[in-house]
Amino acid sequence: MSEFAIIQEYFSTIQQLDNPAVALGIGDDAAILNIPKGQQLVVSTDTMNIGRHFPENAPAEAIAYRAVATAVSDLAAMAAKPLGFTLSLSLTDVDQHWLQQFSKGLLKASTAFKIPLVGGDTTRGPLSIAVQVMGCVSVGDAVRRSGAQLGDDIYVSNYLGDAALALPLVLGEKSYQQDDAFLSKQFYYPEPQLELGLTLKGIASSMIDISDGLLSDLGHICKLSDCQAQLDENSIPVSPYLTKHLSSKEALTLALTGGDDYQLCFTAAKEQAEQIKAIEKRLATPLSKVGEVVEGSGVYCLDEQGKAIEFKHSGFNHFR
Amino acid sequence: MSEFAIIQEYFSTIQQLDNPAVALGIGDDAAILNIPKGQQLVVSTDTMNIGRHFPENAPAEAIAYRAVATAVSDLAAMAAKPLGFTLSLSLTDVDQHWLQQFSKGLLKASTAFKIPLVGGDTTRGPLSIAVQVMGCVSVGDAVRRSGAQLGDDIYVSNYLGDAALALPLVLGEKSYQQDDAFLSKQFYYPEPQLELGLTLKGIASSMIDISDGLLSDLGHICKLSDCQAQLDENSIPVSPYLTKHLSSKEALTLALTGGDDYQLCFTAAKEQAEQIKAIEKRLATPLSKVGEVVEGSGVYCLDEQGKAIEFKHSGFNHFR
Repeated sequence: MSEFAIIQEYFSTIQQLDNPAVALGIGDDAAILNIPKGQQLVVSTDTMNIGRHFPENAPAEAIAYRAVATAVSDLAAMAAKPLGFTLSLSLTDVDQHWLQQFSKGLLKASTAFKIPLVGGDTTRGPLSIAVQVMGCVSVGDAVRRSGAQLGDDIYVSNYLGDAALALPLVLGEKSYQQDDAFLSKQFYYPEPQLELGLTLKGIASSMIDISDGLLSDLGHICKLSDCQAQLDENSIPVSPYLTKHLSSKEALTLALTGGDDYQLCFTAAKEQAEQIKAIEKRLATPLSKVGEVVEGSGVYCLDEQGKAIEFKHSGFNHFR
Repeated sequence: MSEFAIIQEYFSTIQQLDNPAVALGIGDDAAILNIPKGQQLVVSTDTMNIGRHFPENAPAEAIAYRAVATAVSDLAAMAAKPLGFTLSLSLTDVDQHWLQQFSKGLLKASTAFKIPLVGGDTTRGPLSIAVQVMGCVSVGDAVRRSGAQLGDDIYVSNYLGDAALALPLVLGEKSYQQDDAFLSKQFYYPEPQLELGLTLKGIASSMIDISDGLLSDLGHICKLSDCQAQLDENSIPVSPYLTKHLSSKEALTLALTGGDDYQLCFTAAKEQAEQIKAIEKRLATPLSKVGEVVEGSGVYCLDEQGKAIEFKHSGFNHFR
């Protein structure tokens, strides 16, 4: 099967040629996208390698969905609207059943996040999926990591820790019995918080998506905003699945240091508290106030006595 | 060495933060690019895997340069101007000397093509380099593969075949003696024809860059423009290095079916002939009229008797 036949068979259906952003889709030297007037381009890249970001036996549909969802999550974290994505796919061989399932996952994600596949390439090599997403935002409206201000509140969307809890499960090392299906879905089908991100434009002072763990990712905000984050142990939205399957200490640790949840962490001035309550209600998305921005550097989680809790490591690092 | 340290040390210098296209560079969830008013976004992706697109012992500087140059070549083929690129780099381990050389090659290419590195990611895995380039073009001005018209002349820039001739050399299987340095450069440091591409806007009716071989790539134009290409054996710009080292039949074959030259092939109405002569002179870039667009399908190279020459294969296909 030639590269062209593969593209025709498995990828041409994911183009959304009726999407007004796509002026020219797959099949030329490059794709052409329309950028709405007064908008800037927002662009991010995510690569998933076999054995590193997903296990050897991971379902193709799930891999595809997850690759797109995690990349789209970066657009959410900038308060950007999806425009399109490209895919660089390396395959060891042409397994048509695998490709069919992979294509199905791509289509699901592409439809769910209204983001057309506009180009890419397919090469021989160990399975690797690099997704580049493009989005747009009105000039100056993107929410950056560098905008946190002293006295801001720190928020986290939904619950933390499910994906990290699921990790030994998807690796085939553990079972959580009747929770297996739910947890495996939490790992493979993360929900990028696009609508929440867009809604927080003008409200959040800084924002990041939690891919490596809250302590680690909030650390990036602190570094770029030149501030310290103080979290309150009791307000962390630890997933109930963690407290069900782990000790409370283990659960808190995983919620703070486990990656792959793709929830949003953002800061906002205290005056925005009511506004944020209203958004929580309107989007039916739990938004927990987890701490405060103070002078200093680094991220600390304080216990009831106001003492910093120590953790062995703060998050996932590909090169540790 | 952490992913963040790697980015800081080896990639942050390639950002061109003074480039007006870059509103926000490396270090946030996503980069932000300014798209000039009235322009569309042009986007393309190229992946290079070790052992497939370059040999195991390929110099890191050359790999980096070539990865960017070949991706930029797709912008040239659309008559687009570079805006920025992202890089997805998979590494088996952190070899600081290798990274230093790689970074040097990236900087060289980034400077040569005025294209800043705006983002990307670094993961563990077999060496793989996925470059996504973004460029811009005035609305409707991109030169597509689908525009060739019956009666158009077919042109090729510069000379063909050097990169294919160099292949056994860079694989360490052959030496061309005093020509080794030149040929190895032709392979590793292709020159994307950016200025030529931009100049041909409004003149070329269709255009493609020659990555897989003239017969194969011109075939894409014919397919999308619903026409046939008839080439004239005697007007193919066979590189003199091919005629020096090969029989004339072998030289022609390599010039027509060898890939990796990244020259432009384009079609233009006969009325444009003088204009194209003037461009050839002004850019000091040989532009050979190699044939004509006729009714039918496919690409044929005719000998002096007007008979189609047969070739075993038409070009490179990753999945053959």
